[in-house]
Amino acid sequence: MATLSEAAALLQAGQDITILCHRSPDGDTLGSGYGLGHALARLGKRVRICCADPIPPQLLPLLPPPPSFAGDEQFVVAVDIADEKLLGTLQERYAGRVDLCIDHHKSNCSYAKATYLLPEAAATAELMAGVIEALGVPLDREIATCLYIGIATDTGCFRYASATANTLRVAAALVEQGIDHGEINRLLFDTKSARRVAAECEALQSLEYCCDQRCAVMSIPLMLLERHGLADDELEGMAALPRQIEGVCVGVTIREQPDHCRVSVRSSHGADASAICAAFGGGGHLRAGGCSVRGTLAEVKKRLVDEVCRQLGCEDCG
Amino acid sequence: MATLSEAAALLQAGQDITILCHRSPDGDTLGSGYGLGHALARLGKRVRICCADPIPPQLLPLLPPPPSFAGDEQFVVAVDIADEKLLGTLQERYAGRVDLCIDHHKSNCSYAKATYLLPEAAATAELMAGVIEALGVPLDREIATCLYIGIATDTGCFRYASATANTLRVAAALVEQGIDHGEINRLLFDTKSARRVAAECEALQSLEYCCDQRCAVMSIPLMLLERHGLADDELEGMAALPRQIEGVCVGVTIREQPDHCRVSVRSSHGADASAICAAFGGGGHLRAGGCSVRGTLAEVKKRLVDEVCRQLGCEDCG
Repeated sequence: MATLSEAAALLQAGQDITILCHRSPDGDTLGSGYGLGHALARLGKRVRICCADPIPPQLLPLLPPPPSFAGDEQFVVAVDIADEKLLGTLQERYAGRVDLCIDHHKSNCSYAKATYLLPEAAATAELMAGVIEALGVPLDREIATCLYIGIATDTGCFRYASATANTLRVAAALVEQGIDHGEINRLLFDTKSARRVAAECEALQSLEYCCDQRCAVMSIPLMLLERHGLADDELEGMAALPRQIEGVCVGVTIREQPDHCRVSVRSSHGADASAICAAFGGGGHLRAGGCSVRGTLAEVKKRLVDEVCRQLGCEDCG
Repeated sequence: MATLSEAAALLQAGQDITILCHRSPDGDTLGSGYGLGHALARLGKRVRICCADPIPPQLLPLLPPPPSFAGDEQFVVAVDIADEKLLGTLQERYAGRVDLCIDHHKSNCSYAKATYLLPEAAATAELMAGVIEALGVPLDREIATCLYIGIATDTGCFRYASATANTLRVAAALVEQGIDHGEINRLLFDTKSARRVAAECEALQSLEYCCDQRCAVMSIPLMLLERHGLADDELEGMAALPRQIEGVCVGVTIREQPDHCRVSVRSSHGADASAICAAFGGGGHLRAGGCSVRGTLAEVKKRLVDEVCRQLGCEDCG
């Protein structure tokens, strides 16, 4: 484990620096990485940002890219990457070669030569603001835009309990730089593709309730993606929908695959999503879990409903 | 116009105080009013909160009520009320009798004997935090919960550009009181009734696009409310949906009424919602407007599409 000043000193000592973001990149790994990249460039360093997968299209127009260099680096820093596996195809080149990891996941497995970890931060971008301050680089509009995207992404735009007083104070300092946070949030949180909306509506019409309306089950047949021309990753976030229904404390989403079903469970009010998924060999946290279950959509639905009934102690259905 | 210290002195001088919230109350008028009520109660004053309409059911469990008194008041304070008309049925008793108005609407028409107005505040609850500080009452969990609800409501949970650095800093101080902001936000922003979800899906399936997908039109027939057993006010916020579709800069929602249609227009990227509505005798702002148009749903849709085409300079449809 490294302290903030040790992490800053390591970065200060580097000259040609590669910043790694995790595979399937989200706003936090990219926002933190780009923000750090701009800050290091302000110090006259050469910087390159690497990620195994492409930047999601909705983030592309929002993130100002820092300058880049070709050739070998002297220092490698991983941001928001809890495990080397999350380097994706970059593992081949960078596994065992990360000099510094900057992260907020308490599950971080300390694979880097030095790790600056702050598990109480709501986002890596929140603690990156402190790293950039320790580097002596003043915030500007570009850096602030990148870090704001990271914090907004990981806190659901400050909705989650993980957004602490410190998170909000850091965000205040970022907004003060004159960033276009209204437009950023509109694009991140209030924009959906027409085909995603159509697919959501169709999926929502499959909602079935049990356990006195405390459980809602949504089914997504294979053909739904085909019909709406959706890629697999365009369904992201849909598993949250059933639990958002008033009175529902267990929301189950079942996605049909060629020979099995992928199940996501979301819960509230003490219902244990991971316990439900563990009954099928899966896992997760109290409020979010997942598992794979063999069988058709109808068979899997029946088994899930039975298990939810059991766990909710429901005697009226099942 | 009153200064902050003048407003605080007026409140300090009162003993039995009635706090007025606007009709069709939202989280800001109620959160600001309840927060002020608790603060005044801490100073040993007798407090009563009055509103012409009932508290919305989703806010009822979140807002801790301050103690109340019967009988006549010596001082009347209106919170978040830009115009006496917004007192609703309380106009009869309180019109011309408001001693102090605390508000953030720049449209405030100065109907009270004294007005403390801060138009740069994102919510009345944001400036109420300053009033409570000026009263010398320290924040506690109850007051902070009320004010947080106000700020979160008026900023769409900090999504809108109106949420400034100061808004976020005030929110940080509230969160520091140990409020359950994760649960508050879940109930305010991530919860919908099953019938609202069903009605939304049905309405979204009516979406039609024109002007090269830059305009989306959603139709809500009268029977949709009946079919889903929805009250009129349960459709609130639905007018935002068409504009949330990727690429859409004019979102039109047409709600059928017995002999006419109510039209809401939302816009982005410079398209002028109020200009579109003005063509039908309505009005609004750049990004949100409304009008009433005589005719059937199909007739009104045709007229709106023609007007949007004209305003977007579209030559391909209409």
